[in-house]
Amino acid sequence: KNDNSQQQPSQKKSKKDEAGKFLLKAPKGTRDFDPLQMAVRDNVFKKIIECFQLHGAVTIDTPVFERKEILTQKYGEDSKLIYDLNDQAGELLSLRYDLTVPFARYLAMNRLINIKRYQIGKVYRRDQPCAARGRYREFYQCDFDIAGVYDKMLPDSECVKIMADILTKVDLGDFQIKINHRKLLDGMFEVCGVPKDKIRLVSSSIDKLDKTEWTDVKKELVEEKSIDPEVADKIGEYAKLSGGMELIDQLKSDEVLNKNKSASEALDDLDLLFKYCAIFGIKDKLLFDLSLARGLDYYTGVIYEAILKGDLVDYIAEQQKKALAEKAAARAVAIEKAKGKKTKEILELEDEDADVNVSSGVGTVAAGGRYDELVNMFDKKQNVPCVGLSIGVERLFAVMEAKIKRDNLKVRACETEVYVATPQKGLVEERLRLCQMLWEANIKTEHSYKANPKILHQLQYCEENKIPYAIIIGQDEIENRVVKLREVASRAEETVPREKLIETLSEKLLKTIKTY
Amino acid sequence: KNDNSQQQPSQKKSKKDEAGKFLLKAPKGTRDFDPLQMAVRDNVFKKIIECFQLHGAVTIDTPVFERKEILTQKYGEDSKLIYDLNDQAGELLSLRYDLTVPFARYLAMNRLINIKRYQIGKVYRRDQPCAARGRYREFYQCDFDIAGVYDKMLPDSECVKIMADILTKVDLGDFQIKINHRKLLDGMFEVCGVPKDKIRLVSSSIDKLDKTEWTDVKKELVEEKSIDPEVADKIGEYAKLSGGMELIDQLKSDEVLNKNKSASEALDDLDLLFKYCAIFGIKDKLLFDLSLARGLDYYTGVIYEAILKGDLVDYIAEQQKKALAEKAAARAVAIEKAKGKKTKEILELEDEDADVNVSSGVGTVAAGGRYDELVNMFDKKQNVPCVGLSIGVERLFAVMEAKIKRDNLKVRACETEVYVATPQKGLVEERLRLCQMLWEANIKTEHSYKANPKILHQLQYCEENKIPYAIIIGQDEIENRVVKLREVASRAEETVPREKLIETLSEKLLKTIKTY
Repeated sequence: KNDNSQQQPSQKKSKKDEAGKFLLKAPKGTRDFDPLQMAVRDNVFKKIIECFQLHGAVTIDTPVFERKEILTQKYGEDSKLIYDLNDQAGELLSLRYDLTVPFARYLAMNRLINIKRYQIGKVYRRDQPCAARGRYREFYQCDFDIAGVYDKMLPDSECVKIMADILTKVDLGDFQIKINHRKLLDGMFEVCGVPKDKIRLVSSSIDKLDKTEWTDVKKELVEEKSIDPEVADKIGEYAKLSGGMELIDQLKSDEVLNKNKSASEALDDLDLLFKYCAIFGIKDKLLFDLSLARGLDYYTGVIYEAILKGDLVDYIAEQQKKALAEKAAARAVAIEKAKGKKTKEILELEDEDADVNVSSGVGTVAAGGRYDELVNMFDKKQNVPCVGLSIGVERLFAVMEAKIKRDNLKVRACETEVYVATPQKGLVEERLRLCQMLWEANIKTEHSYKANPKILHQLQYCEENKIPYAIIIGQDEIENRVVKLREVASRAEETVPREKLIETLSEKLLKTIKTY
Repeated sequence: KNDNSQQQPSQKKSKKDEAGKFLLKAPKGTRDFDPLQMAVRDNVFKKIIECFQLHGAVTIDTPVFERKEILTQKYGEDSKLIYDLNDQAGELLSLRYDLTVPFARYLAMNRLINIKRYQIGKVYRRDQPCAARGRYREFYQCDFDIAGVYDKMLPDSECVKIMADILTKVDLGDFQIKINHRKLLDGMFEVCGVPKDKIRLVSSSIDKLDKTEWTDVKKELVEEKSIDPEVADKIGEYAKLSGGMELIDQLKSDEVLNKNKSASEALDDLDLLFKYCAIFGIKDKLLFDLSLARGLDYYTGVIYEAILKGDLVDYIAEQQKKALAEKAAARAVAIEKAKGKKTKEILELEDEDADVNVSSGVGTVAAGGRYDELVNMFDKKQNVPCVGLSIGVERLFAVMEAKIKRDNLKVRACETEVYVATPQKGLVEERLRLCQMLWEANIKTEHSYKANPKILHQLQYCEENKIPYAIIIGQDEIENRVVKLREVASRAEETVPREKLIETLSEKLLKTIKTY
């Protein structure tokens, strides 16, 4: 193996764990990203940020932890998933659970009345981790929000537009954006006869209709949530509806629904939203879906979520199923081997998510909605309506990685353009001089950190790291004031005078298509 | 005030705190970054990353917290500054204190034998915060390291080169890179007669010589660290030396020092390092300084640190002094007012760093060195020598912000290129159509989220946010299939046919120099 290779994390001495007294691992539910994963990740981030900036957004940053009281009463039952820090001299701190609540705190604290901002950062949830399903305790969120008192559906439609732009740009297959309105749901439940205090309960059952049959949802409504079966049936009639603008018209002519102020306002909103989205050229991507409810408590208006479609999604579901099955099998073997001994490892294995039968595929890759009351929770005197979206960027990474694997795409971890190599001993200073010249010209350059490396190892390094060009300089070349310029992929070589090197190389690099 | 402005965090409703029951603030020692600060920050990061990539580095990411045992016994006394999390079902976790130890854990865990990586991430230290001095509990680190068994000074000199490249690129004034060698210090202390077990103690005193007079350092050595006065004087003779390659030659001819194997090897290293750095064109920036010792325990070879010089540094020291004095005065008044009442706010005021007399100016903006044993601490069987550098990126932000303030530079928080405005009512859909056309052409575009905004407000928004162009479309323009294209700065307007708009605008934008 080439001892000169600096890039690939696959360069391992041995796989067997002999780490000694240290348990060398990342904390439960977290992971490191290796250089290739980082290249994929940075590429996805870059595309997302370009879209946010195309729409004029600025960015902010907030600390990774917040005062605990800022986070309480924002996440309902999920609050138990918040990581707390040890008491810091009387200050109780928690790791942030999302970027929305810190954003609302930022708005309230600075008394901002409007901003259009994006924020990318890690958030923390002590959920049951499941690597095969891409569920981690530390993961990135990628949010865009428009805060301010504006006219109906103008910020909302731009959020939907940005979601569509991003999903188009990342190029991971076709997608669909489901749309609904919290006030339509409220109105709908009301006219069906759901008691006010049960609306949230019913809502969370209805939200399962994308994965669960109506008969099961109805059972849940009647048996667990004590909803009258007739009321449930009425809800079912509405919740099964989905479509485009014609469905909005249809519901607008539903007299019962239209007498409800909340529902009627929501339908006007949706009508306008679809009209604006038609101008944005994304009408075909939208699906008005009455079963969409979204989990979070704080939404107050339009809600939306995007799902990926197409063959890549099927491929991923298949891969996931395989991975989960393999894991289950491995675990069964490990538990069998341990024969009742409760070692630490076994306990951890048992602790993991064991449900291998349900394969969730990719699921939602972006979601959002309007939340007009959140800033108000921090300061009763402030009214800052907000609407936003969050890109499920960890899922996009996973889909991108699946695509690279399936289509055997080439990804480079480094961006090196040229490698300076020497075929004989004693030429290290000559190499450094060339590197210096290339760095000065802003050409991404590497060379061996061995004083007298073997030429074979140097060229292998170029091929392994997909460096497009190598410059070879030996005694002959030095005497003739030339270098050999080698195209690594084709192994074609040409002789270039030293004073022409930068020019020749720059021209060639302009024409080199970036692998990824 | 223009109700249309979406960008500036200075758009505050009121400054008085009436937040109600919530204490609306970021945790102690942390801060939010507003859009303008983020623009400055992103600009600095971009330049640094470009340099790292110019030298072929890949990047990795590790979780923000580590298993507590990974961090113990790495930071000596400073371990008390580590943030611990609440016990997570038996897993003890701590926020990372730097990026070096997680990097070593990553190398050991994956049994990597070589990598050249950069990593940018936040680290956490429960230090006494002091905003005026730029000391925070959450701050960014920006590291570059070369791991692997290589030949002498080749990776080391490239690290010094990268440090110089970055400081040149950020363009914040002249700088100097101080160089020394841990083994030279060891040898020097040995020949002066310092007992082996006191070498680290003496070293930390010597390191203060850039800010403290020799007489005070000597006093510390003799009185606090029980060093024989004659030994101290001998140390003093060496420690006061600094210079270039000629100093290396001078020390090489020092017979006492050269009999010491450690010192003699170190001098050979430094000789080679200077030779390589001369090829890299940065010899003039280097200062061989025998008083440089660096705090961290884990260094084993060459060490270096860079300091900024020039008038910007003086300006910052002055500003700092002013800020600290103002703060001290404000605190005195606040404490006086409270008349012995120990309210929470007063306690916090008293808790803060009160030392206003020492103004540290900018200090070290980059530092690093060789650490050959750290990976070995995680796995006795692994030997992965490392050398690296860390950019003091928070200090660079502060200097950049001072430069912007002093030189009244224009910074934009958003990158919007054109704003679509309408002078009459009822034209919102026309505006959306134009936005859609511009977004399609990848032109960064904004418009008002009011259905019928006033033209004055729209144009004010452009000027406030330094958007270079505005497109104005009214009834006349619609009828004639044209738009008005306005250069915001000069207020010059021209009429452009709609089908020529993208072309005309793209050409103009190519010529627009980015403000920042």
